[in-house]
Amino acid sequence: MKTSSIAMFEALALDAFDLPEGVTYLDGNSLGPLPKAARARVDSMLKEEWGKLLIGGWNAGGADGEGWMDQPLIQGDRIGHLIGAPKGTTLVGETLSIRLYQALAAALSLRPDRKVVLTDSGNFPSDLYMAQALLETLGQGHELVIVEPEEVADRIGDDVAVLMLTHVDYRSGRMHDMAALTKAAHDIGALTVWDLAHSAGAVVVDLAGCEADFAVGCTYKYLNGGPGAPAFIHAREDHCETARPVLAGWLGHAAPFAFEQAYRPGPGISRFRVGTPPIVQMAALETALDVFDGVEMADIRARSIALSQGFVERVLDKTDLQLASDPDPQKRGSQISLHHAEGYAVMQALIARGVVGDFRAPDILRFGFAPLYNSRADVLSAADELAEIVASEAWNRPEFLTRKAVT
Amino acid sequence: MKTSSIAMFEALALDAFDLPEGVTYLDGNSLGPLPKAARARVDSMLKEEWGKLLIGGWNAGGADGEGWMDQPLIQGDRIGHLIGAPKGTTLVGETLSIRLYQALAAALSLRPDRKVVLTDSGNFPSDLYMAQALLETLGQGHELVIVEPEEVADRIGDDVAVLMLTHVDYRSGRMHDMAALTKAAHDIGALTVWDLAHSAGAVVVDLAGCEADFAVGCTYKYLNGGPGAPAFIHAREDHCETARPVLAGWLGHAAPFAFEQAYRPGPGISRFRVGTPPIVQMAALETALDVFDGVEMADIRARSIALSQGFVERVLDKTDLQLASDPDPQKRGSQISLHHAEGYAVMQALIARGVVGDFRAPDILRFGFAPLYNSRADVLSAADELAEIVASEAWNRPEFLTRKAVT
Repeated sequence: MKTSSIAMFEALALDAFDLPEGVTYLDGNSLGPLPKAARARVDSMLKEEWGKLLIGGWNAGGADGEGWMDQPLIQGDRIGHLIGAPKGTTLVGETLSIRLYQALAAALSLRPDRKVVLTDSGNFPSDLYMAQALLETLGQGHELVIVEPEEVADRIGDDVAVLMLTHVDYRSGRMHDMAALTKAAHDIGALTVWDLAHSAGAVVVDLAGCEADFAVGCTYKYLNGGPGAPAFIHAREDHCETARPVLAGWLGHAAPFAFEQAYRPGPGISRFRVGTPPIVQMAALETALDVFDGVEMADIRARSIALSQGFVERVLDKTDLQLASDPDPQKRGSQISLHHAEGYAVMQALIARGVVGDFRAPDILRFGFAPLYNSRADVLSAADELAEIVASEAWNRPEFLTRKAVT
Repeated sequence: MKTSSIAMFEALALDAFDLPEGVTYLDGNSLGPLPKAARARVDSMLKEEWGKLLIGGWNAGGADGEGWMDQPLIQGDRIGHLIGAPKGTTLVGETLSIRLYQALAAALSLRPDRKVVLTDSGNFPSDLYMAQALLETLGQGHELVIVEPEEVADRIGDDVAVLMLTHVDYRSGRMHDMAALTKAAHDIGALTVWDLAHSAGAVVVDLAGCEADFAVGCTYKYLNGGPGAPAFIHAREDHCETARPVLAGWLGHAAPFAFEQAYRPGPGISRFRVGTPPIVQMAALETALDVFDGVEMADIRARSIALSQGFVERVLDKTDLQLASDPDPQKRGSQISLHHAEGYAVMQALIARGVVGDFRAPDILRFGFAPLYNSRADVLSAADELAEIVASEAWNRPEFLTRKAVT
């Protein structure tokens, strides 16, 4: 990575986000920070669009007057650009769990002769719950097979209809080889559903290059869309024309405003539309995606590795904490996880010092690295704080040990 | 209705919403207007909560610091109050089509021995599409039976698992007798799913009094939550403990942050939670629900009837337009529909004069009446404009006849 590029990130870190004074925010893997442009854009959406256009906003709203109705496709294409998806194959709206259900159901509709959905124990639990519920609803002998992450490749057999994986593990940051696993699935006639919750905006994803079938993700983590920002779904171009949407909402109909009694799926990715899209929420998301304009994901990734490696080296140098993440940065996402038996209290002590990461049971300290707003100096200083807290047992105080509701 | 109450509504009409100068807005049945308090509340949510609390907002965000995570239940209870649902039985989040799918699936899970879902041709098409898709997914001989609205009562037989109806017809405004039909369904062992999209905030709904099983609705029509505001779902208290959620998202888990591999439904209505709730959107909704504080739905309903009757009498007096709505105000929602062969052009001509209603194919002019911001004088003046446009054929101009995308 060139120096100019590093300088650019450092400038962005000062410019694009509103972060509280004195806070080093290493929890963008859970909820990204507020883009500076979000407040003005959302207020303009409320005042000038909802307030003045009223119902006419569906046709004439949006920052460029392109209509609210098309925002799911417009913002979808912008996300598609960041995950290697061709134009017209990515759609924003609904929540990630809903999108996962929809993508899995669509994939299964293309391979009706097979009954196994293969996944791994590192998948986000909601994906497992939604899949289990879908398979129960489908009945007919469908089965969810859950193996360990490292066993996935060996288990891909000719009974597998769909390989459903989260690309980057939410706990450890372990990253699957999307290209290799997708190829292995295709070689044996299976389809793939990739959950990109911890990938989009964080690592290089090349859906088209992998010929991945379906992908879903959220926009409130590394994409910084805000709390409860809508999810996205991608379907490969050929599947857009053939897969059964299953959640067959009116906005996915070929002619939603003809109000026909029978469902006819719309063209392309639009058949995966379900209900009315969250326009206020999308105005904030729009400003978050603006930050990525002109930035290459390869540069973000290189800088993210530099940041996380700097952090890891400093922590391992100063403490005897064990990595829960792969030491090879190519095999993990933009996240570092460390074991500590009193992880919850350690994280509370860190937060009290202005370093915000999070805790995942039973003993995982998580730190996300986002080059768009984390600087090298902040990251090293965070490592120093962590090392000091561990060495001095500063975490061993009642206010840090008492568990509150955890998010 | 007492005079003081009418005066109160007229005052609210001036106070609570931002409507453009010169516009009479009779399309709140499609998208309610901007509450005056929304901009400040949303900006405070962005600046003080997302911006300063960051991930901590899930525990400490919200107008009173009650945490973002509980907003779906807090705002759900406020909506529940307006539809006669006991505390703890209504939940906000996801889109209406998703909630319909979920409610219908939950109802079917309680009556596994029966295969018929009975509905009518006046149901909103998305409900029919979602139901059809669910029944196809379930297989096992499930069938969607669609009859005419007036034939519903006679068709309720002992093969019916679920009676699924929209309370107020989106086209004509015809209102079903919820108490009678729910009782008829229960008498023969069927459950009910009511779609309250055109009812919540518009007419008196008494879910508890009717012992209705499930209800769903949106919050962007008469509840004025904003474009894409989240939907709600209600489940009767006993069903909350037994129905299968089907869309089994992590936030509906008994212990979402324990990240268990297997799904265990959470307590009460929370088992119907799916994905991360849209917090920015909900901040706007919160201010919209504030407007209903201290207002009785019975008073809103009485005032709505006075408004719509005034409008109808004036229109029928001055034109030969035919009502598509029931002439008996007790048999319709807060909406008047009229036939006109050139309805699209008539509506465009009306909108050009500042009277905003909408058009539904093939020939329906729709007008929604919202006592919270429509005054009697405005409604009568709107009727006069309509009469003048019809009499003079002012609609017969190229700019009104040319169809644009319709919402």
